[in-house]
Amino acid sequence: MAQVDLNCDLGESFGAYTIGLDDQVIPHVTSANIACGAHAGDPSVMRNTVRCAHAAGVAIGAHPGYPDLMGFGRRALAMSPHDVYASILYQVGALAAFAKAEGAQLHHVKPHGALYNAAAKNATLAQAIAQAVKDFDDQLILVGLAGSESIAAAQNVGLRTASEFFADRAYQENGSLVPRSQANAVITDKRKAIERTLRAVKEGVVESENGTVIPLAADTICIHGDNPAAVAFAAEIRAALEAAGSTLSVQSSGQN
Amino acid sequence: MAQVDLNCDLGESFGAYTIGLDDQVIPHVTSANIACGAHAGDPSVMRNTVRCAHAAGVAIGAHPGYPDLMGFGRRALAMSPHDVYASILYQVGALAAFAKAEGAQLHHVKPHGALYNAAAKNATLAQAIAQAVKDFDDQLILVGLAGSESIAAAQNVGLRTASEFFADRAYQENGSLVPRSQANAVITDKRKAIERTLRAVKEGVVESENGTVIPLAADTICIHGDNPAAVAFAAEIRAALEAAGSTLSVQSSGQN
Amino acid sequence: MAQVDLNCDLGESFGAYTIGLDDQVIPHVTSANIACGAHAGDPSVMRNTVRCAHAAGVAIGAHPGYPDLMGFGRRALAMSPHDVYASILYQVGALAAFAKAEGAQLHHVKPHGALYNAAAKNATLAQAIAQAVKDFDDQLILVGLAGSESIAAAQNVGLRTASEFFADRAYQENGSLVPRSQANAVITDKRKAIERTLRAVKEGVVESENGTVIPLAADTICIHGDNPAAVAFAAEIRAALEAAGSTLSVQSSGQN
Amino acid sequence: MAQVDLNCDLGESFGAYTIGLDDQVIPHVTSANIACGAHAGDPSVMRNTVRCAHAAGVAIGAHPGYPDLMGFGRRALAMSPHDVYASILYQVGALAAFAKAEGAQLHHVKPHGALYNAAAKNATLAQAIAQAVKDFDDQLILVGLAGSESIAAAQNVGLRTASEFFADRAYQENGSLVPRSQANAVITDKRKAIERTLRAVKEGVVESENGTVIPLAADTICIHGDNPAAVAFAAEIRAALEAAGSTLSVQSSGQN
Repeated sequence: MAQVDLNCDLGESFGAYTIGLDDQVIPHVTSANIACGAHAGDPSVMRNTVRCAHAAGVAIGAHPGYPDLMGFGRRALAMSPHDVYASILYQVGALAAFAKAEGAQLHHVKPHGALYNAAAKNATLAQAIAQAVKDFDDQLILVGLAGSESIAAAQNVGLRTASEFFADRAYQENGSLVPRSQANAVITDKRKAIERTLRAVKEGVVESENGTVIPLAADTICIHGDNPAAVAFAAEIRAALEAAGSTLSVQSSGQN
Repeated sequence: MAQVDLNCDLGESFGAYTIGLDDQVIPHVTSANIACGAHAGDPSVMRNTVRCAHAAGVAIGAHPGYPDLMGFGRRALAMSPHDVYASILYQVGALAAFAKAEGAQLHHVKPHGALYNAAAKNATLAQAIAQAVKDFDDQLILVGLAGSESIAAAQNVGLRTASEFFADRAYQENGSLVPRSQANAVITDKRKAIERTLRAVKEGVVESENGTVIPLAADTICIHGDNPAAVAFAAEIRAALEAAGSTLSVQSSGQN
Repeated sequence: MAQVDLNCDLGESFGAYTIGLDDQVIPHVTSANIACGAHAGDPSVMRNTVRCAHAAGVAIGAHPGYPDLMGFGRRALAMSPHDVYASILYQVGALAAFAKAEGAQLHHVKPHGALYNAAAKNATLAQAIAQAVKDFDDQLILVGLAGSESIAAAQNVGLRTASEFFADRAYQENGSLVPRSQANAVITDKRKAIERTLRAVKEGVVESENGTVIPLAADTICIHGDNPAAVAFAAEIRAALEAAGSTLSVQSSGQN
Repeated sequence: MAQVDLNCDLGESFGAYTIGLDDQVIPHVTSANIACGAHAGDPSVMRNTVRCAHAAGVAIGAHPGYPDLMGFGRRALAMSPHDVYASILYQVGALAAFAKAEGAQLHHVKPHGALYNAAAKNATLAQAIAQAVKDFDDQLILVGLAGSESIAAAQNVGLRTASEFFADRAYQENGSLVPRSQANAVITDKRKAIERTLRAVKEGVVESENGTVIPLAADTICIHGDNPAAVAFAAEIRAALEAAGSTLSVQSSGQN
């Protein structure tokens, strides 16, 4: 049966500030995207998060973002591709050091927030990110929006990729997400979100906002751990996938 | 004849801000301590500096400091040993990523400024630093003040070490530096500074402020590249060492 | 009857990060110490907090700290008195701008965390802070540890002062706090904490750890709003003070 | 005869990092735009720069920018207008505190770099900036690109304005600057730059890139102090303006 990964952004606390119910959501996921100190996270948080993820048998990934702590990496920032390349290398290297010190392996890289969105559409930025990941370790998997420039650029440089599916987001006919500015952007009906996820995982398709069924790779499902409701939904989606016979584990669909 | 290393702090520019005549001083040194983005440096500066040092055949080292850009890492900061451990791992990992991407090897770690000074006297802090370096890569050499807690802690955990000698600083009878608050702290007579360096390298001794000759390891000499005079002095000290028959190359005195 | 102020540190959130139940604790206090973007807070948080405090009729104060967001201003940082002076002026000016824009008045300044503690013991640092506050506005009240160098320095430059009493902390015979490293540092019995507060407000004395009753000014009581228990205690201490006939309002004991 | 102001960005150093020949360029200008600690500058630098400008009789202005030190405020950042409002208030308030402490008056506000450019074209952003400046002090002058949304928004809220002319930049027929991506963006011929400036000041017109003479307000001329050549040019342009009978002093063209 179908194999799929459940990923979650973790390690986004900073100093005295806490974000995310990391301990509660870790049991429900198979891979962790750990913030690298630019948009969130600090060295001690990174160390603890790598430890927890490793102890739970969850695959460890780097989650680099724009160097904008005040904006939590959610604001577009006009960094040059050259600077993005260097920033990715910096952040991935820093996170990998904690994995190394814990005897763990770095497994994947998933850019965060505004950088994730920018790379999905901008081929030059996507290329800078893919090259940085490859130059650090060509065995890493790059996680990106299904059908995006991020995935294309990563495959171009020879990286394996994992296409990400959003359970609670509506899709346009061209495979991109319906912008949050539109009323129908978020799927609030949990049952419907789970049904769409199961279909994407099993059949590799999703029904777009106008009713057309479009092909869409779904190697990994994005899970949230921000609040108790999100954690409960993570448990539900995992249970539904297992009940439907999916194998939950990390794996890329891209050829190396 | 005696073998000695000439090291210099490099890559301390940040964004639009430039510090250090890196291009001019690199030809005179055998190892580079490259800032890691905490007290100085940014990802793009790190990338360029690693490239230049590697192209010049200079050994690449990480130069981690307190996360205090405004104070350039020169102000004591009461970080816990746990946080220092994580910060060192973070910074060394980030710098190592640039070395890896350039096909170079990370060679050593030399803490910066206030962290260097604190670790020289504080055994717990020194232990945190040594452990972080070892946990990242037990083949790295830790550079520290000759006779300090830094060197002791690094040897304790099984790291190789390089004891640093300051050509232009006076020493107390116990081997520590005369504090800058004292009038005689800095040796302004260049010829005298060079003579002291030659003696330290060849005989492993230095004359302390009160005239006593004390033993002092001098595996590596600290060179500055802040201004033209400093670069000129770097050239002079290198020439004097070569004329005296010293071999200039990186090497540790510590046993692994 | 006695008059006393209840103060609380507020506005310590930053970007996507939230700290403190500001909305819940504001009704229980008479003055707000609002973080200024150095150790905590950001411009938008400052604006919102000033608005809320002003709307609630709470006196608005600046709460400047060391520029160390990662350490939340709780780590000692060896800033020069010159840099502390400039940092205080910067932070107080920034906070005052929000008060001005809202048609409110800046009322007091209370340094935060490690800076508060350093200034309590270090006369030079205390002097730098007092001078900065005075140079900005000589009508401001400086809040500091009762009997500390902070209070002395502020009175020296002609500022009014408010001496702060900690309901839940034990005192040494010399009037300083029992260090947190000692087992008896924190008074966990709420009833006892309230009794001590009432006595300090009414009689101006506190029983020190060894049983001696010592004089201690208590112009303002430090209240916390970190968690529901802290907020509940704030309500209790306020009720107890009102029941005992104290007038709750901001006022300084120092002569101008 | 015509009256004109010569303004220069100053106080852009940070900690150990120096940018700008502030001491050398101050004698040639009539108003100073002083960085406020977000894109450049730190509290001690701000204090020193305010002092020097005040001592030289130069009008003191705030030069707020995006909170992006690594990018020196030159990278577009997708801040919400609400956050821009708060950031401007914060930065202007902080700078004003140093003026107040020195017995000087804050005179104007000129946004920096990418924020300046964004506000020139984006009416909502321009409105947020203008409102923040007005809410802080409605007597301040807002400096912006001649003919831009910045100027329009400031006049809309009732602020006085000063339209800025760039001596060394080519203009499009619609009054906006020729983008730096075009070959003819910068006027390298100094004599031509000075001639254009004199004409703009005296006649209020500039010849656009296609030869059309267009109206353009020139209340203030932007001067640079980055390097010796820039300082020399500042001296030349001042001499040329004085020789042509212009009065050099700060003044706005906008009605209050």
